[in-house]
Amino acid sequence: MRMRKKPWAKDMILQRQDCVIANPEEMPGKWREYGKDSVVVEIGAGKGDYWINMAHMYPDELWVAVEKNIDAAGIALKKSLENTSENMKFIVNDAASISQWFAEGEVDRIHLNFSDPWPKKHHTKRRLTYGSFLNDYARILKEQGRLIMKTDNAQLFEYSLVSFASAGWKLCEVYVNYRSVKHDEDAITEYENNFINLGQPIYRAVWEVVKTDEKV
Amino acid sequence: MRMRKKPWAKDMILQRQDCVIANPEEMPGKWREYGKDSVVVEIGAGKGDYWINMAHMYPDELWVAVEKNIDAAGIALKKSLENTSENMKFIVNDAASISQWFAEGEVDRIHLNFSDPWPKKHHTKRRLTYGSFLNDYARILKEQGRLIMKTDNAQLFEYSLVSFASAGWKLCEVYVNYRSVKHDEDAITEYENNFINLGQPIYRAVWEVVKTDEKV
Repeated sequence: MRMRKKPWAKDMILQRQDCVIANPEEMPGKWREYGKDSVVVEIGAGKGDYWINMAHMYPDELWVAVEKNIDAAGIALKKSLENTSENMKFIVNDAASISQWFAEGEVDRIHLNFSDPWPKKHHTKRRLTYGSFLNDYARILKEQGRLIMKTDNAQLFEYSLVSFASAGWKLCEVYVNYRSVKHDEDAITEYENNFINLGQPIYRAVWEVVKTDEKV
Repeated sequence: MRMRKKPWAKDMILQRQDCVIANPEEMPGKWREYGKDSVVVEIGAGKGDYWINMAHMYPDELWVAVEKNIDAAGIALKKSLENTSENMKFIVNDAASISQWFAEGEVDRIHLNFSDPWPKKHHTKRRLTYGSFLNDYARILKEQGRLIMKTDNAQLFEYSLVSFASAGWKLCEVYVNYRSVKHDEDAITEYENNFINLGQPIYRAVWEVVKTDEKV
């Protein structure tokens, strides 16, 4: 997502010590100490709308947003300034390092929402559903932990279905027009609503991790 | 597919001895005797348009249509009367018996086109991608044999993706809008064209069979 520079973004990140995890590499094994039932990670949280909505809908879950873009992170943290909650955490960093922030099996669920499709072939490795990312996710997810992906991008969705299948993940649910039926349990952001209003389908899939040592 | 009764359908089937396999249960192990490079089976061939087009496009493949509806089969056989080809065969019978017509590993590829979605939950077992059908397909397909499914029905497609995944098949390709890009290698029937003209997406997936004895 390209956006105008926010000169105040860095200050906002510094100001939000209640929420921002400044040194995530010191956190593996400690996430349960927040006392929540489960640890949920949204990778590529952008301007944070989904993270904010879901964290409020599910107060018993710890919602950890990951976003490397400083301007987007600044917006997310500013937005949530006045209605923050103790179950909302934010990591302003590159998800490529995610396996350094969570211990093996520490995460209950991962969400990918409207991730950058990186359509060019030579950018395949940057897609958040590329094989090396899946290996990292498989490591930090608990046994039978799930990853939920939602996107408007047909090519990214198609690529991801094959990528997860190749990596041995178990496909549990798939939707080629998720919003054709009401799903109140899942927050709709303004960004997602734009696609719905244009009559474009929202794609969604849920996979369960199959831990490498379970495979033969 | 519901259609008006064709009183001439039975006669047409009897007349087409050049094409109709009257006793498919006598055929296991014999399909290679037609001398073609590969044995391709279309299950639920309906009025036969895809079967006719593809058999003409791929003369080196033996195209075996399976259709239990006598009226639809009659139409298919009438249509192909004047432009038939020695690589076109037809079985007027219920695909539930398919494992009695082909030997283990005798089939190179299976096609399912616009199969009846059987949307009601208590009809799930009738869907051509229900687990027991997949077991039959896995048996008659050769090692690394493929099944190609095309449909306009989102629910059947979603169901099928999960069904194949549960049965351990390997997802090779998936398309949530197959006709958004030109695919001259795959025949478009009038029936499929209706959906394209309405702007409705065509869903397609390709799976490779994983033989049960390969799995651990």
